Amino acid sequence: MANKHVGKLSMGAHTFEIPPILYETNRKRLVERLKKDIANSVVVLQGGSEVSIYDSDTTYLFRQEAYFNWCFGVAEPDCYGIIDVVTGDSHLFFPRLPVEYAVWMGPLTPLDEFKKKYKSHHVHYVDELKQVLENLNRETLLTLSGVNSDSGLTAKTATFEGIEKFKVNNKALFPIIADLRVIKTSYELDVLKYVTEVSSAAHRHVMRFAKAGTFEYQCESEFLNHCYKHGGCRHVAYTCICGSGINGAVLHYGHAGAPNNFQLEDGKLCLFDMGGEYYGYAADITVTFPVNGKFSPQQKIVYEAVLKSNEAVLKAGKPGVSWTDMHLLANRVLLEELKKGGLLQGSVDDMIAADIAPIFQPHGLGHFVGLNVHDVGGYLEGNPERPTKPGLKSLRTARILEKNMVLTIEPGCYFINILLDNALADPIKSKFLVADVINTYRNFGGVRIEDDVVVTEDGIKNLTKVPRTVQEIEDWIAGTDDDKKYS
Amino acid sequence: MANKHVGKLSMGAHTFEIPPILYETNRKRLVERLKKDIANSVVVLQGGSEVSIYDSDTTYLFRQEAYFNWCFGVAEPDCYGIIDVVTGDSHLFFPRLPVEYAVWMGPLTPLDEFKKKYKSHHVHYVDELKQVLENLNRETLLTLSGVNSDSGLTAKTATFEGIEKFKVNNKALFPIIADLRVIKTSYELDVLKYVTEVSSAAHRHVMRFAKAGTFEYQCESEFLNHCYKHGGCRHVAYTCICGSGINGAVLHYGHAGAPNNFQLEDGKLCLFDMGGEYYGYAADITVTFPVNGKFSPQQKIVYEAVLKSNEAVLKAGKPGVSWTDMHLLANRVLLEELKKGGLLQGSVDDMIAADIAPIFQPHGLGHFVGLNVHDVGGYLEGNPERPTKPGLKSLRTARILEKNMVLTIEPGCYFINILLDNALADPIKSKFLVADVINTYRNFGGVRIEDDVVVTEDGIKNLTKVPRTVQEIEDWIAGTDDDKKYS
Repeated sequence: MANKHVGKLSMGAHTFEIPPILYETNRKRLVERLKKDIANSVVVLQGGSEVSIYDSDTTYLFRQEAYFNWCFGVAEPDCYGIIDVVTGDSHLFFPRLPVEYAVWMGPLTPLDEFKKKYKSHHVHYVDELKQVLENLNRETLLTLSGVNSDSGLTAKTATFEGIEKFKVNNKALFPIIADLRVIKTSYELDVLKYVTEVSSAAHRHVMRFAKAGTFEYQCESEFLNHCYKHGGCRHVAYTCICGSGINGAVLHYGHAGAPNNFQLEDGKLCLFDMGGEYYGYAADITVTFPVNGKFSPQQKIVYEAVLKSNEAVLKAGKPGVSWTDMHLLANRVLLEELKKGGLLQGSVDDMIAADIAPIFQPHGLGHFVGLNVHDVGGYLEGNPERPTKPGLKSLRTARILEKNMVLTIEPGCYFINILLDNALADPIKSKFLVADVINTYRNFGGVRIEDDVVVTEDGIKNLTKVPRTVQEIEDWIAGTDDDKKYS
Repeated sequence: MANKHVGKLSMGAHTFEIPPILYETNRKRLVERLKKDIANSVVVLQGGSEVSIYDSDTTYLFRQEAYFNWCFGVAEPDCYGIIDVVTGDSHLFFPRLPVEYAVWMGPLTPLDEFKKKYKSHHVHYVDELKQVLENLNRETLLTLSGVNSDSGLTAKTATFEGIEKFKVNNKALFPIIADLRVIKTSYELDVLKYVTEVSSAAHRHVMRFAKAGTFEYQCESEFLNHCYKHGGCRHVAYTCICGSGINGAVLHYGHAGAPNNFQLEDGKLCLFDMGGEYYGYAADITVTFPVNGKFSPQQKIVYEAVLKSNEAVLKAGKPGVSWTDMHLLANRVLLEELKKGGLLQGSVDDMIAADIAPIFQPHGLGHFVGLNVHDVGGYLEGNPERPTKPGLKSLRTARILEKNMVLTIEPGCYFINILLDNALADPIKSKFLVADVINTYRNFGGVRIEDDVVVTEDGIKNLTKVPRTVQEIEDWIAGTDDDKKYS
């Protein structure tokens, strides 16, 4: 039957249907934690709003605020949600829209339909929020306030007319909810698995689409279309990075000042870092492959060095292991392989002491993934603090791995002129670099191999399904491999 | 040669290259106007910045602020631009970026390259703005401030550290620059023609892609891909409206609460309102066509009524004509045709007096198009004020047409239950409605036919290139017509 998915958290039968129990479970986990400390309370979260593009009457395509989304899964803007810590009941509040709204935006959804769609215990209009809170009569309102350790920005704090009449605690909630978001439930893992598979398939498609002469942005466009059309992903989780050739050495290539506008050239590599987003849940995958489908000997050296680095972490990662140690492991393997490849010389231990690794991989090994692509909880109190050494200081978390964390493993190796020049001019660093060889890589760009993984009971499960070895990539692009291998 | 377009205002040889003289001409026109009133002055505009998605470290894909874009065509965020009214010279100011920026965002662009790319007389760093203004030593800084008549929001006003030391006039600039934006130069017309053709081609593609069972958002996805891949349009000018069946009656369908998530059904119409954006310039096109490629007799009645309404305006529009009169003309033709089709009865003059037209077309006939999809200058002082009657009050301008205005002509006819119910319950209105017939249209949805046009010396030129008659549409979808007819 057509359209039976409408009113559910699904984009049709070919996509994933999110069960409302996902959000119910998140709320239950939150209530359990809050009950220990601050039982006579009610959580108050304010959902996101549309953002106007300057003074125009157009808006950026709406994105839901992530903490609100984690608790309630509501797709619409301008809502509030509360959770009564005493009973565990959830209440959703929707804007009371004027009748004319129906003409422009569609028939007004009755509150009962929202109640059904989001399986909320109670539903009201936003203008009833204060009254509902008064009737609940809990001692404390818990609102959100805390700093995102990746952006330095502060989480959206709920506010409403009359809030000053309540006793508000805006400190307790943030560290608890951020910490809960780090450990994914089985329901969340299902969504993350889905969006990673959709994004993997889109990458596989793009690997075959890309040819010499293709523009980088045409690859972006094909990726977006594949994720949306086949996977129901209206958004990507971040701006697509489609670097070819030297652009592969620009870590956040693709922004307005460098908008994926080069043409792919025969003999160069593509470094494509893109991920879809489904009901807010993100994927974050990087593939690196040769434009012409065959790795050159030089490309093979760097690619396989990075792949070994990636595989070492896939093998070593498990609960109890420090993420900082995984970063250092990835670095060590990379240095060993670059030495074997003739780019470096000397003792690898000495290289590590001399900070050689961050010349080639200036970024961290990886980060949490969830409702944000750089997901929250990286540096919460009680966990290891941000390291200060080059490379390590870029880590978005230094935590000890736990079961059901979802992270990226994304070692890379880039030839960035400014970093190479500084290193070659440095009396200590330069002695590890084989300058003649390294200089032949000046226009190489870079390699990154990025997987989305789950920490399991005793290891790591890779959710990413793309060709990874040199052979697999060459076979895939040649078309001798079929899609079933990866699905 | 590959990549010779990089550093120019082009997305490659298959796309349009914007000549910097476009912006130079805009600035000259502005200087000429300002010289008359306030000659000893300098215009100071602040470009747009990236907008964070809540507290995350991701941003909405950057959009340039439109007034700044109109003057300078700069693609990068966080810039300023000034125009010395005395000499006509332009100065651009770019952020002074830290060296580490190169690692993440790409090699730092030297100021000279920006100067060449944007053909600015002078280039500086943003931190030099105050000093440059002091050196210029003009009597008055002209900054932007004024209300957008579509959104009610205020234009972005430039500000910088130390501005309080200057004499600032934030009133004079807005009405002049907004008014200049209404009349397009030949350079701007070339870009608008290009983006309208790209968007037309994407619509034609989607008309053949759409089938029973396709999801509305898959049509959106194909449109986006076509505009980007073939036309270099990274953005669309507004959220895609892909309404099928009853959703065609929701004027701004496609937003987060109604996200193009229905499946197309055999026997229904599609009303797809989508437009690409190229270097900020917008297209805004609506096509209406049957999912199965053949209009039913009922669909034909409404479609041809709207088409006649559209054609009447295409024929009557020219310099000197009032846009309000064009709206009324479109309404009259629509009512006449609906009467012929058996939906209405009585005198058309009486229907107009009784406000019957806005029951079926609650929106205005059309609006300016340019760097905003609802472009500025609709209700500037000295022009006709916003009408107050139903339907007319939704007009985004009531101006007298002038040569080189670009507008949409977008009559529509919708069957919106709330409006029909109110009308049928109204003792005066109801006597014009043939209730039995109209009730057979309850689940019909709607028809809109929207063209982007230029007012010429003596008429209207249609920039839109899509099949429009019933025959053309049926031929196009059947594949018996080829693309050359429209390109």
